[in-house]
This record gives sequence, C-alpha cells and structure tokens, in this order.
Amino acid sequence: MNQAPIDQTDAWQRLQEHARELRGTHLRQLFADPKRGTAFTRRAAGLTLDLSKQRWNDATLALLLELARDAGVPQGIKALLEGEHVNISEDRPALHSALRLPADASLIVDGEDVVPGVHATLDRMETMVERLHARQWRGATGRPIHDVVNLGVGGSDLGPLMVTHALADHRPADAHHVEVHFASTMDGSQLVDYLKRFNPETTLFVISSKSFTTIDTLSNALTARDWLMARLVEDGIQGVDEKMVMRQHFIGVSAKPEKMSEWGIAEANQLLFWEWVGGRYSLWGAIGLPIALVIGMQGFRELLAGAHAMDEHFAQAPLEDNLPVMLALAGIWNVNFLDIRAHSILPYDGRLEHFAAYLEQLEMESNGKSATHDGDLVNYSTCPVLWGQLGPNAQHAFYQLLHQGTQPVVCDFIAPLKRYDNVEDVATRNHLKAQHRLTLANCFAQSRLLMLGDDAIDEPGERPGHKRYRGNQPSTTLLLDRLTPATLGALIALYEHKVFVQATIWAINPFDQWGVELGKQIAGETERILADHRGHEGMDASTRGLIEAAWQAERENER
Amino acid sequence: MNQAPIDQTDAWQRLQEHARELRGTHLRQLFADPKRGTAFTRRAAGLTLDLSKQRWNDATLALLLELARDAGVPQGIKALLEGEHVNISEDRPALHSALRLPADASLIVDGEDVVPGVHATLDRMETMVERLHARQWRGATGRPIHDVVNLGVGGSDLGPLMVTHALADHRPADAHHVEVHFASTMDGSQLVDYLKRFNPETTLFVISSKSFTTIDTLSNALTARDWLMARLVEDGIQGVDEKMVMRQHFIGVSAKPEKMSEWGIAEANQLLFWEWVGGRYSLWGAIGLPIALVIGMQGFRELLAGAHAMDEHFAQAPLEDNLPVMLALAGIWNVNFLDIRAHSILPYDGRLEHFAAYLEQLEMESNGKSATHDGDLVNYSTCPVLWGQLGPNAQHAFYQLLHQGTQPVVCDFIAPLKRYDNVEDVATRNHLKAQHRLTLANCFAQSRLLMLGDDAIDEPGERPGHKRYRGNQPSTTLLLDRLTPATLGALIALYEHKVFVQATIWAINPFDQWGVELGKQIAGETERILADHRGHEGMDASTRGLIEAAWQAERENER
Repeated sequence: MNQAPIDQTDAWQRLQEHARELRGTHLRQLFADPKRGTAFTRRAAGLTLDLSKQRWNDATLALLLELARDAGVPQGIKALLEGEHVNISEDRPALHSALRLPADASLIVDGEDVVPGVHATLDRMETMVERLHARQWRGATGRPIHDVVNLGVGGSDLGPLMVTHALADHRPADAHHVEVHFASTMDGSQLVDYLKRFNPETTLFVISSKSFTTIDTLSNALTARDWLMARLVEDGIQGVDEKMVMRQHFIGVSAKPEKMSEWGIAEANQLLFWEWVGGRYSLWGAIGLPIALVIGMQGFRELLAGAHAMDEHFAQAPLEDNLPVMLALAGIWNVNFLDIRAHSILPYDGRLEHFAAYLEQLEMESNGKSATHDGDLVNYSTCPVLWGQLGPNAQHAFYQLLHQGTQPVVCDFIAPLKRYDNVEDVATRNHLKAQHRLTLANCFAQSRLLMLGDDAIDEPGERPGHKRYRGNQPSTTLLLDRLTPATLGALIALYEHKVFVQATIWAINPFDQWGVELGKQIAGETERILADHRGHEGMDASTRGLIEAAWQAERENER
Repeated sequence: MNQAPIDQTDAWQRLQEHARELRGTHLRQLFADPKRGTAFTRRAAGLTLDLSKQRWNDATLALLLELARDAGVPQGIKALLEGEHVNISEDRPALHSALRLPADASLIVDGEDVVPGVHATLDRMETMVERLHARQWRGATGRPIHDVVNLGVGGSDLGPLMVTHALADHRPADAHHVEVHFASTMDGSQLVDYLKRFNPETTLFVISSKSFTTIDTLSNALTARDWLMARLVEDGIQGVDEKMVMRQHFIGVSAKPEKMSEWGIAEANQLLFWEWVGGRYSLWGAIGLPIALVIGMQGFRELLAGAHAMDEHFAQAPLEDNLPVMLALAGIWNVNFLDIRAHSILPYDGRLEHFAAYLEQLEMESNGKSATHDGDLVNYSTCPVLWGQLGPNAQHAFYQLLHQGTQPVVCDFIAPLKRYDNVEDVATRNHLKAQHRLTLANCFAQSRLLMLGDDAIDEPGERPGHKRYRGNQPSTTLLLDRLTPATLGALIALYEHKVFVQATIWAINPFDQWGVELGKQIAGETERILADHRGHEGMDASTRGLIEAAWQAERENER
C-alpha cells in the first residue's frame, strides 16, 4: 500500500499521460474492436454492467487497476467488510453490510458478534409489520391503523422513499393495505397536507432519526403530536388519554433509545440501530420499516439477500471482474483524467423515479470532500456533481445539453430487461409490454447516439451546425434481469461499494459528513435572532438585509 | 450591436483580465463594504433579488453591462417581446409573453393581432374548467368527473406539474374537487398505477402534446383509451358507445387540430396553441389546463398577470435594474469567467418541490447548445449543469459537496417571506409558522456559511482539515413576498427571460431543440429492430449486446 498522495504515484502519472494520448481518439474508433462489447461487460447478482461505452481501452483499465492496488483497494474492501474502523474521523466501523448478513453468519466487531443484534431488530420489525398487516395494531379509539407517515429526512427518508416506490408492485397479497407516506421538509409542507386529509384515529407516525435530534424531523413530529392530542384527547373522545395516543400512534427509529424515551416513545415501540450505520447507508435495518410495511418482511429479507449477494461478490471477485470496483474506476477515469465534472443518473423505469435523488445523497454526501485522512487538501477532483431524472422524461428535458451542450457529462443508463409479466388483463399487458419495449429502445438508442453522434445515422452530406451531434460522450449501461427486491438490493449495494472504492483511491473518508454540521449550528443561531428580533448587528450586510425583510414581513402581517 | 464573436469583444477580454485580478479576493473581503447588501439587491413584481453574495463588485457589473450592450441585449428584449422571428433556425417568433398579455392589449405579429386568439383560448378553457368544477362534465355513464389525468411529457408535463403542486393551497373554495394527476413516463409506470385505482366512469384524460406525435404521450393515451373502452363499452354498460367515451373522457391540447381529430378527440374538446409557443414555455395557455383545474380560472389569470408584470419590467427597466438581466449576468460571470460549471436550485418551501426539475428543462433544453446562429461552434461555455432539490432536504443530502467538495457550484436560494397566515386552527398555525421561521433561518444561514466558510463562527484556533469550510461559494437569494399565483408567475417569467438574455450573449438560439430530434429517430429504428428480432448486425458491439440481452429475456419469458 502506497503512502504517497495518490496523484504522486506512478500509475496516476502514467494515467495522465495516457489520457493525453487517448484524447484524440473518438469512442467510435475504439469500437473498431468487435469484441469490445463483451470485453467490457461484467455480470453479478442479477445485474449486467456494460462499461464498453466509456472512453477507455485495455491499457487504461490496466493502469486504473494498478492505481486501485496502489491505493490499497483490496485491503480496503477487507477492512470495510470485516468491521475495521474505516470511518477514521469518527473512529468506528461502517457496517451497513453487516445489516444484510444471514442469521447464521457471525461478524466479531470490537470483540462482539453483531449478527444476533441485527437479527433481533429484524424480528422486532417483523412483529410490528405483522400486527399492522393483520389489522391488529389499533389506534387509541380501537380502529386499525390505515395511514403510516414516516417523519424523517436525508438518510431516514430517501432510502425508504426510493425503495417503496420502486417495489410498490411487490405488496404481499394477503396483507391489510397500510398506506405509507413520507413527510421530510422542515417547513411542514407535506405534513400539513396529510393532516388535512387523514383520520387521526387511524394514523400512525414513524419518527426516524439516528440522533433523534434532527430538527427537521422533530419539528414535524411536534406538529403531528399536537394534532393527534387536539383531536383525540382534547376533543374528549371517551377513554382516550395522552399515554394511549403515544403508545398507539408513534414508533421511533433511532440509535438513541434514551432520547426516544424522553420524547415519549413507548419502549415497546422503539426500533434501534447502531452508531456504526451511517444515515445514508441505513435503509437495511430499522430505518427500512416503511419498506417492510409495503413489501412485507419476506420481501424485505429478499432485498437484504440481494445486497448480501453483492457484498459477497465485492469481497471475492478479482478487481477486474468486480462490479463496484469497475464502476468506481470508470468514475475516477472520467473525473480525474478526462475532467468530466458532471454525472447523470438515468433510469428507464418509472418505478425508479427517486433513484437519482437517492444516489445524489449517497455519492455527494459521502465523497463531496476535499480533506484526506491526514487533513491535507487534495490536489485533485473528488466527487462530481450528480443529478438525474427518469431517462425518457429527461429526453424531453435536459438531453439537449447532453447531446449539444458545452459541458461534458457521463451518464448511467439503468433498465430492467423483463417487465409487466404479471399484469392480468391480456390486452393491457400487451400494451404495457410494448411500452416497456419502446422504453428499452430509447435507452439503447440514447447511449448509442451519445457515443456516435452524427455517425449514428446514415445521411448523405454534412448537417448544419445547429443539427450536429459531436458524440464521444461516455456512458455506462446497467441492466437488471427484472426489478425485484433482490436485484434492487444488489443495485444499491453496487453503488454503495463503488463510493467506497472511489473514496479509498481519493484517500477521503466517505462515512463522515462534517460539511453539514456547521450549517445546523448557524441555522440555530439565526433562528434565535429571527425569533428574538435582535442580534444581527454583527452579520454581513446581505444576511442583515434578509433578516430585516423577514421582520418587516412579520410586522406587515400583524397590522 | 457588435457582430464579432462575443469572446472577441473588448468587454469579454477585459472581463477575463478582471476575473484574474479578482481571483485572490474572498467574498468576505468584498463584504467590507457595508452598503454591499442594498447595492446589489433589486425588486420587481413581488420579488426581491439579492445578488450581493456573487463573487463580483461594481467594476465587474459595469463590464458585464457593457458586454450585454455589445451583445445587443436591449434590442434582443425588444425583438422578443414584439414578436420578431427570434427563433431563427425555425424562422418564427417565441411569444410565450403574448400568452399573458391582457385582453385589451394588442400585438401584431406577421400582420395579425395575436391577442384575441389568446383570449379566445382562455375563454374556452374557462368554459371547460367551469363545467368540471360545477359537476356538469359527466362521464359516459352520467357520473361527474372526479379524476383528471394529464398525459404529457416535457413541456406538457413539468410546467403544470410544478405549478399545481406550488399552488395546491389556492383551490377555489366553492368548486367541485377534481383531483388532477400526471402520467408522463413512456413505460406506463404512473398510468398503470392510476388504472388500478381509478373508476373509468369518472376519469378524464387530457392528452397534451404540441405536435400530437410525442410517442411517450400517445403510448400512454392508447393504453388509457383501451382501458376505458374495455370497461365502459365492451363490458356492455347499457347505452355507452365508443363515441360517447371519446367525447366525455378525452380533452386534447395541441398545436395540430387535424392530428387531434384523427386520433378521435371531439372538436369541442380540442384546445389549441400556436407554433410560436415553445413546449417548455407553454404553461401559460392551453397546456396550463391542469393548473386552472386546481386553482380556478381566476387564479390562472392571476398567474398570467404576475408573469405579465415581469414582462413589463423586463421591457422597461434599465439593464442595471432589470431582474432577468442581472440574474443572467451573474450566470455569465460564473460560467464564463469563474469556470463554475454547476448551478444548484434550492427552494426553501416544500410546495416548490418540482421547481428545480422545471428549471432543469427550461435552462438546459434552451441553452444546452454549442452552435451560434451562424452554425459555428462556440469557443466558450454555455449552459451549466443545473440541478436541485428542496433546500432543507438537500442540506441532508448534497450540501456536504457544496461546503467541502472540490467542484465549485453556484446556488439559487428561493423562499417566501410570509406563510401559513390562513391556517384556521390557532395551535397548528403557530406550529407551522415556527416551522416556516426555522426554514427561513436555514436558508439565510446556508448562504452565509457558503460565503464566509469557517469565518461564519467565532471559534478560537484552527479547525482540523476535515472540519474546514473554505467559503467563497457564490449564491443568489430570491425572496417572494408570499407564494401566490402572481408571484409564482413573476418568478417563472424571471427565469424564462434570464435564459433569453444569456442566449443572446452566447449567440445561441434558446427556442429550438435540435439536440433531441435525432434520438427520437434512432429510438424508432431501435424499437423496430427489437420488435422484428432482426436488423442489428450493422450496429456497434455494445448496442448489439444490449439488444441480444433483451431478446434473450423475451425468450426466457416465453418458456
């Protein structure tokens, strides 16, 4: 393992030189090799990863693999999965992979086997899910719960939100239909809409916060609690008291049981996870409760099994066949050697509508860093800007920039091969299968056009300037055999590990988030100034002006 | 008006030099001037635009204004608003601003006054909306319509989707509650969910497509039509025939009446717009029908009036006080002189959850171009990558990268000053107002921290590397007095005109989208190959492999 800064290694220097040589080569020329498609395609855990449309060749890959070895990627993978303290700044392991270990596995971390605790939580979740699915979990007035609202933000929101949408057609047939909703915004927007529509007697809130101090979530929780109390207790429904409301309308999910108890969550309704699970890596345990409420515990366990299959692959496959490593290396090549600073995530499946937002957090919060483990500033780019949208919709929105803009962008195209096989009505099924085929056709056509540009069509003569497509835009295509709990689990784990491999090469810590801490502190101070109507004198002229505008608006309202 | 390429002008060259001089100056130093806050703040049409946290000074602005004049911005504004053929490649005007002219105005374009036609369409919309709101529009079996599904994508989806969410609390009190839904994805994802849940007797589809050839929309429309026919006609409901279903369950919105008739849309149910309205600028007319169904026609006319107020301001205000011009110049400075290639849109109001996606289309589809009007390739950057998320949520997702990443990003913070004044229940109102104040505090705190970095807090000693915030990240803050139809109209028009000003300076056409045309053609060919199971031999090795994987999946399903 090389201890010099990574950009001082021999492999990095040779990659720079190699990038200069390759600069004049168009992707279409690289495809002169007819074996290129298979040579750059890898399969694991129900996923097919086609990296042949990256602007690289065998020599690039060999150098990148050398870079990965120099950076200690193989040792890093081992350290991660075995529970070493890879989260250096916080001196703890990052063990989301332990959340998906099978019950008969064992993983000793800091002297203790973590697996029994993981499965005890899963069993506790199962009990709750079964009570809700059997109409046995009842509100304070005795009616079965119908609406469950997850109050959480960031890691306590995006994962469950994304997965419940992706797997909505995997509801167990025999379960009582519980509607799951999400309220995350601190301004109460979504919540106020729910409070208008839902019946307090049949509504349950899940308060999800690792620290149980997230003000966004606790603000919403307070509004929700008062709403329930006003309608169920103060309105004087016979025999309903505050304690019953707390016990029958709130579940807490956190790493801080004492904080949950303080807030009033009944002990029986507390689901725990551990400090060694990062918020943005937490959907695999208690934070995944909303997922289990939609797809059932069996589905949830399949999701875990799919992710575990990817963990096993990550642990065992040689670097050059290792999906997360290969995906990471393509990213390193684009960011650090081709200076491509933007990365677009484009699923061709409407069910994955929140997948891009999920990855935005996973990648940018993990790797949007510029200090190495030693605290030095890096001399190279780290995480690119990631954004995305459903591919077919983005075709009508921002593909214009991908094809003809001045900013180079690398794209991930994601699509399931099979779909709509279980639609009962034959005519509707045939329609929908045709829509799926059309969607795949668009997916394949767009990556081809991005690669070839004008050469993708057979047309005599030169096109006028405004109709020209330069091509040579790199992309990755990721095919799922079918979108199931298992393949989705594998897909998410693939990206989690990709992020880790990149962080290892960049020598940054993907598991802390010091860049979001100061904002919380300053927001708290600013809130007090806004509330107290004083104390802004020492601030900059812009902030002073904004605060005064807010005060002015309040005064106008009071008149 | 200077005819040399813009980067050859004197102003451009001096801006480059000036950028080099300013490079060593931190934003916090610029704020040594106590008047800076007000000096860079402008107001119009219910909006306050604070540009003081941009990394510029008076000299920068003077040079940028000179650049704007050299590029012919004043003449461009006049040409746009007066209906000249500013969409050069398609030889037509771009007259979205005409859609919001008052009824007593007049605008002669190519010899004809366009205003009467615009208002005739509004009146026609009004008739439809009133029938639906009065429970007088009934389905084929005689029951009033309850669910309206907008089938459209891109410009026929994002505008109505964004605005209906933003103004959901502006429903007229006395109207029959019609639920408005959107299905845009070509794979049928959203639609299939609706078909499971909705009653065909009370569901109406609005098919929105400027060309009425958009395959995404027409695929969904076909699936929807067959669903209605199967349930209402073939199931043999007494007295219901196909013609009745077509007449009572479909509205068409398009610039092509003959195509609508061909598809079977009854003439009385056709709403028209014009070739001179670009798809991504079209929410102001017939495409806005779903908006009018939510906020009523009076609300819709207020939206138009707000946008018109911004048009008037754009036409009349001097460049240095002109909000769209100032916003555009800040962007030019960031992209072309500070090499900031990414731009984040961060509304601090949950109701604006789709605003970033809307702007992604507006900006990237308009200005993601690299050919000038003469067909030459530009030598400078044009549109940056735009993306965003609700600000408070993004704080828990990607602000890490904004504060500590290696990619510079410019941010637009957007927030309403007043909120929740009309919530009836006092306790809930007080809670929600506190949540709003908290949200404003976060908004102001984040832009301050991005600007100042570590200096935003008073702390002795140096922070360790991983806790350091470099600051000096530029941002804009846009305050709305309150989020209403009028201020939202002004806000959207502000960005529309910003895009136009930037396009004028870059010498590109913001109103065409040739970069999305070839994809449609190639997708069509690919779809035929997928369906016919042959014809992929001449393609590149990657695409061949992807197509074969799709065929293989089909065969597996048949077994």
